[in-house]
Amino acid sequence: MKPRQSAAGQTRLGQIGEDVLLQKLSGLLPIDHRVIAGSGGDAAIVASPNRGDLLVLKTDCVVEGIHFDRSSPAEAVGWKAMMRSLSDFAAVSGLPDFGLITLIVQRETELGWVTGVYRGLGRAARRFKVSIVGGETSSTPGPAAIAVSVVGHVERRRWVSRSGGKPGDDLFVTGRLGGSIRGKHLQFVPRIEESRWLTSRFRIAAMMDLSDGLGTDLPRLAQASEVGFTIDKAKIPLSRGVNATNAVSDGEDYELLFAISPQQSEHLTKCWFKKFPRVPLTKIGSLIRKSSRRKPQLHRGYDHFQ
Amino acid sequence: MKPRQSAAGQTRLGQIGEDVLLQKLSGLLPIDHRVIAGSGGDAAIVASPNRGDLLVLKTDCVVEGIHFDRSSPAEAVGWKAMMRSLSDFAAVSGLPDFGLITLIVQRETELGWVTGVYRGLGRAARRFKVSIVGGETSSTPGPAAIAVSVVGHVERRRWVSRSGGKPGDDLFVTGRLGGSIRGKHLQFVPRIEESRWLTSRFRIAAMMDLSDGLGTDLPRLAQASEVGFTIDKAKIPLSRGVNATNAVSDGEDYELLFAISPQQSEHLTKCWFKKFPRVPLTKIGSLIRKSSRRKPQLHRGYDHFQ
Repeated sequence: MKPRQSAAGQTRLGQIGEDVLLQKLSGLLPIDHRVIAGSGGDAAIVASPNRGDLLVLKTDCVVEGIHFDRSSPAEAVGWKAMMRSLSDFAAVSGLPDFGLITLIVQRETELGWVTGVYRGLGRAARRFKVSIVGGETSSTPGPAAIAVSVVGHVERRRWVSRSGGKPGDDLFVTGRLGGSIRGKHLQFVPRIEESRWLTSRFRIAAMMDLSDGLGTDLPRLAQASEVGFTIDKAKIPLSRGVNATNAVSDGEDYELLFAISPQQSEHLTKCWFKKFPRVPLTKIGSLIRKSSRRKPQLHRGYDHFQ
Repeated sequence: MKPRQSAAGQTRLGQIGEDVLLQKLSGLLPIDHRVIAGSGGDAAIVASPNRGDLLVLKTDCVVEGIHFDRSSPAEAVGWKAMMRSLSDFAAVSGLPDFGLITLIVQRETELGWVTGVYRGLGRAARRFKVSIVGGETSSTPGPAAIAVSVVGHVERRRWVSRSGGKPGDDLFVTGRLGGSIRGKHLQFVPRIEESRWLTSRFRIAAMMDLSDGLGTDLPRLAQASEVGFTIDKAKIPLSRGVNATNAVSDGEDYELLFAISPQQSEHLTKCWFKKFPRVPLTKIGSLIRKSSRRKPQLHRGYDHFQ
């Protein structure tokens, strides 16, 4: 099937970018009082029949030619497909419970490839005690795609959104940024354990997972919190062999970015390195008042449609 | 991207078909005690924090070139994408609550087409009071695909599976079968209202929605119930202008097929025609003992991989 051809003057997705697209679309969709935090790329938070909890819902997908290619090991493709959704659970400090899988592949696909993908999905699900309860398969004339939806929960008092940051909060990132395409993007372990530990001991003001690169994601957190930010670029923790530009714009880091009051910072860093001695935690900057007339300091990260 | 080439002797999906594929895959996936009815094409049923209820989870997708094509109106594509998952709620007599959407499209796609799809998704969701809480978008080098996952609930005592049919039960179908491709497949209304009415007044032994055609789906219900079946072909309710072969094998009917004890049948048909005067309800046959050595009486319906 050929790409859709535009009539003259028609807007194409590539011209507007993902954030604008999601904004335009979200107005078309119904939402009601049960929804506490909806659309927009994050995990959704809705009322749970258990009043102490909230339900957490997230869907994500990987597409051949975009998120993986024919040289990617099948098991790694399955692992990534599951872990992308689970990384959003880390972002809100939730625990995943149930997974649904949609597998879209050509009729000519080898059974061995599909079972490899499923082995990877299964291994990733087991790592975080997720039961996979549904699978739908469809043929396609085009590239393979795997969509994974996950349902889970978070205690009301431990849910963290992007929007609670305050001017003066310290900004931290876990791990190292950049260069994910060399292999990490197919093998990463979402920071669920770290995120759960954080909210069991500290008041995290705002948090998200870095999927499109710090340069795209940090402005999203700042905007949701209605604040500005300042970054010490020299402090950004770099993956081996990457420069600062890669670190802010490569994307697919699947690390946590969070804001916490400076009063808690020192105690946090001390406890962190005892608990997670092999996972770097770095203060990269602070949130500041929005009115500050600083220019954006970061290169933009990945946009699916630009 | 070219289709994957098999090495000699490798099995391809097209050689084994969808049911065998799903069987092979389901063994690779973790599942635990919270799962009451898992994988296999149906909606999954899992424990709910509310003890009187069960959570219902379903994912489904539509793919360009398979479930719709470029001549399909965008709104109808969105409508269908949502309603396919909702039809599985009708099958288990559940009520849908929350939807998640994954949209996979080319960068060159017209914004107008995407907003049309979302208008259709939104209209379908509103029809059954579903809040759409999450959307993920990805670009693709290939045909468009839309995956919809829906989370909802069903009262424990009203949940109906495929597996409760007994020899002697009467078999009923709603509506008319066959010829869906002429338009119904883009406009159908899942039988949620009818299904909820049925379980509010009758003990439905086994139920499913007809998506791959009576010829494929009825044997699935019989197998799940560990029974055989007998059909009066002359009784199959035909859509205008189709023959009996179309009616059993076209697929995409999205009607209900259910089994009910003969003691309830007469009262059921009387009440049905008062409540739903415009929706046919037809007794097409019965469940029988499995040991009966009848040959399969039906042409097979649609298989995604054959």
